[in-house]
Amino acid sequence: MQNKEIELLIPELRQEAGLRLQKLLPLMTDAGMDAMLLASNANVFYCAGRFFRGYVYINKEGKRIFFLIRPNCFATADDVVAIRKPENIPAELERLGIPVPRALGLELDSLSYSDAERLRRVFPSAEVKNASDVMRRCRMTKTPYELRLMKEDGMHQMEVYHKISRLYKRDMTDVELQVEIERVLRLEGNLGFLRVAGNLMEINLGSVICGDNADAPSPYDFAMGGAGVSPALPCGASGETMTVGHTVMIDMNGCFNGWQTDLTRVWRLGDVSRIAQDAHACSIRILRELEKAALPGVEVRELYDRAMAIAEEEGLSAYFMGHRQKAGFIGHGVGIELNEAPAITPRNKTLLESGMTLAIEPKFVIPGAGAVGIENTYVVTPEGLENLTPFPEEMSDLL
Amino acid sequence: MQNKEIELLIPELRQEAGLRLQKLLPLMTDAGMDAMLLASNANVFYCAGRFFRGYVYINKEGKRIFFLIRPNCFATADDVVAIRKPENIPAELERLGIPVPRALGLELDSLSYSDAERLRRVFPSAEVKNASDVMRRCRMTKTPYELRLMKEDGMHQMEVYHKISRLYKRDMTDVELQVEIERVLRLEGNLGFLRVAGNLMEINLGSVICGDNADAPSPYDFAMGGAGVSPALPCGASGETMTVGHTVMIDMNGCFNGWQTDLTRVWRLGDVSRIAQDAHACSIRILRELEKAALPGVEVRELYDRAMAIAEEEGLSAYFMGHRQKAGFIGHGVGIELNEAPAITPRNKTLLESGMTLAIEPKFVIPGAGAVGIENTYVVTPEGLENLTPFPEEMSDLL
Repeated sequence: MQNKEIELLIPELRQEAGLRLQKLLPLMTDAGMDAMLLASNANVFYCAGRFFRGYVYINKEGKRIFFLIRPNCFATADDVVAIRKPENIPAELERLGIPVPRALGLELDSLSYSDAERLRRVFPSAEVKNASDVMRRCRMTKTPYELRLMKEDGMHQMEVYHKISRLYKRDMTDVELQVEIERVLRLEGNLGFLRVAGNLMEINLGSVICGDNADAPSPYDFAMGGAGVSPALPCGASGETMTVGHTVMIDMNGCFNGWQTDLTRVWRLGDVSRIAQDAHACSIRILRELEKAALPGVEVRELYDRAMAIAEEEGLSAYFMGHRQKAGFIGHGVGIELNEAPAITPRNKTLLESGMTLAIEPKFVIPGAGAVGIENTYVVTPEGLENLTPFPEEMSDLL
Repeated sequence: MQNKEIELLIPELRQEAGLRLQKLLPLMTDAGMDAMLLASNANVFYCAGRFFRGYVYINKEGKRIFFLIRPNCFATADDVVAIRKPENIPAELERLGIPVPRALGLELDSLSYSDAERLRRVFPSAEVKNASDVMRRCRMTKTPYELRLMKEDGMHQMEVYHKISRLYKRDMTDVELQVEIERVLRLEGNLGFLRVAGNLMEINLGSVICGDNADAPSPYDFAMGGAGVSPALPCGASGETMTVGHTVMIDMNGCFNGWQTDLTRVWRLGDVSRIAQDAHACSIRILRELEKAALPGVEVRELYDRAMAIAEEEGLSAYFMGHRQKAGFIGHGVGIELNEAPAITPRNKTLLESGMTLAIEPKFVIPGAGAVGIENTYVVTPEGLENLTPFPEEMSDLL
């Protein structure tokens, strides 16, 4: 339990940290920053390979210092400095011979207003810029090491999904099924925590949505939200018994190693309506087409447009991405956080790049039947999308 | 599924909303605010009785409007207005004949810098003040209705704790035991979500800490953190097999209805050291003394000082509230969020008031044995503390 735990652990990780810096420095320079001071959990973890309480300071020359508030017992390595509070940072920089920045990047999209103002006062002569977008863009494409972790993650998540049909018992409620899935996820190594960007989205370990609960409007930008069991967390499973003729959409979190994969599949209780079956097949068709179309250089919004066009062509647009209330996207980046860039929305002109990871989820809400459609996590390659969650896509029977 | 779900549901809740406003308005006036625009999940839930995406506007005359972005299908009641974005709010206020505020409270401790700046631009002529403290102080004391919910919550949590010894199996890891507790919590109705203030603390549904894992330093201000199983979430159970001679401290979340209770108990595997037993007894003694001492009008810091004095008197201060790394508090407020005001720290001069709810957790880390001590959730009454989690306090045997 020495400072090695804070420094990047093994030679592979030292190299990995170098790769991430290499991606970051040109983005910082483009954004006109001399340095960044990062404080969010996700970015501290990304830069240090471990979460701690404190700050990661990176300047445009590639000098990187970890300022630790807690735990405070690792601070002996050259690049690890114990501080009591952020006001100690300028004196420590001076001691290390590192110039104070003229243009400083802070994570203005995740720091609270009060914390951002406090850090601004720590560097009174610096012009403050927003580092959130730089970090989002850096993390949008993954290194080979990150992709390996995400593949590993997908394997664990699929292992759990293979067990789902055995967890079902007749007359179970949606919550009861979800709890059994949570248990198997956790025993498989899931961290029991869903890291999301922003401080709005509150959710437990995912959602199990049966029948018309899919059409309960959500406070989030979800195709289907579910009513939840409490007005304190009005989202997901509603506690009702799952009954014949309905679908059960399962979208339970995969986070086993700090990176996440996102995977949705649909089970059914007896026969479901023709239109539900057709919509499910349409979701699979959309994914097959996007897997070929999503090449480096393509604009993200083209994926959205192509998916909408297929849903329309099949006469299913009234149900696509929600029915009573619709989501404004058909997918999203995924990595350390569930909702990374790029969001696959009608206006997003970001160009696809090799190494981007995308969760694509063309889903439908069919009144009387429930939610259908699938979600896979992909990585963009020069040949199109590679599926990190290759799990059978047809609806399976629970009964 | 109409607007009634957004308006406060039943006559009791309408009255409840009135009570909360009564507490809030003088605090707003004291803080020199004409109005507040609240956006955080916890405060939206507190003011509306239900979480939604959007804003709660409250002016000092007690006029309250719910501005909803999502879900957008409830907006028919007088005090519920659908908006697409916050920039729509001033025109809606004008339409309703509500004057634009000169001094506007925003939650500067929880809003991101970017979101706060955006809202500031929505009201360019208003002086912005920090509403976070007003809301913290308002929520610090609970109404009778909130206390009823917290008692109910404590009952559920205790019901789960009664089952813990039956969940243990020989050679289990700490994670495996935690997963079985999580399952029983969830089946008892736990929401599977731990709402904390601030965007720093990341944790799964609580912690199960065995033996020397208690002494693994934490990124949080915890008496004991635990190493966790991943550098992405370095906190809590470490995945090791629990072995004889060690304690198992269980601090698993109670959130069944939107309010929380916080309860810690200790189990043991065979005999544990004399000093561990003594320290556990000392924790119980501290609570008995604080239960009498914590009367309305007493300064919060006196509770801290009294606890420290007892630990010192018994020669246990080296282990009190952590060993290698210590926590800076012995308890905290609790309610909708796990970490509410007042924090029981050496400098907090807040005066205790009837209706405050406090989780008090005098804990020790004993090298070679593990963590001992207990935590109860209390409400302050004119006669001292009333325990909302009256569960047997002696160490129980797991083996």
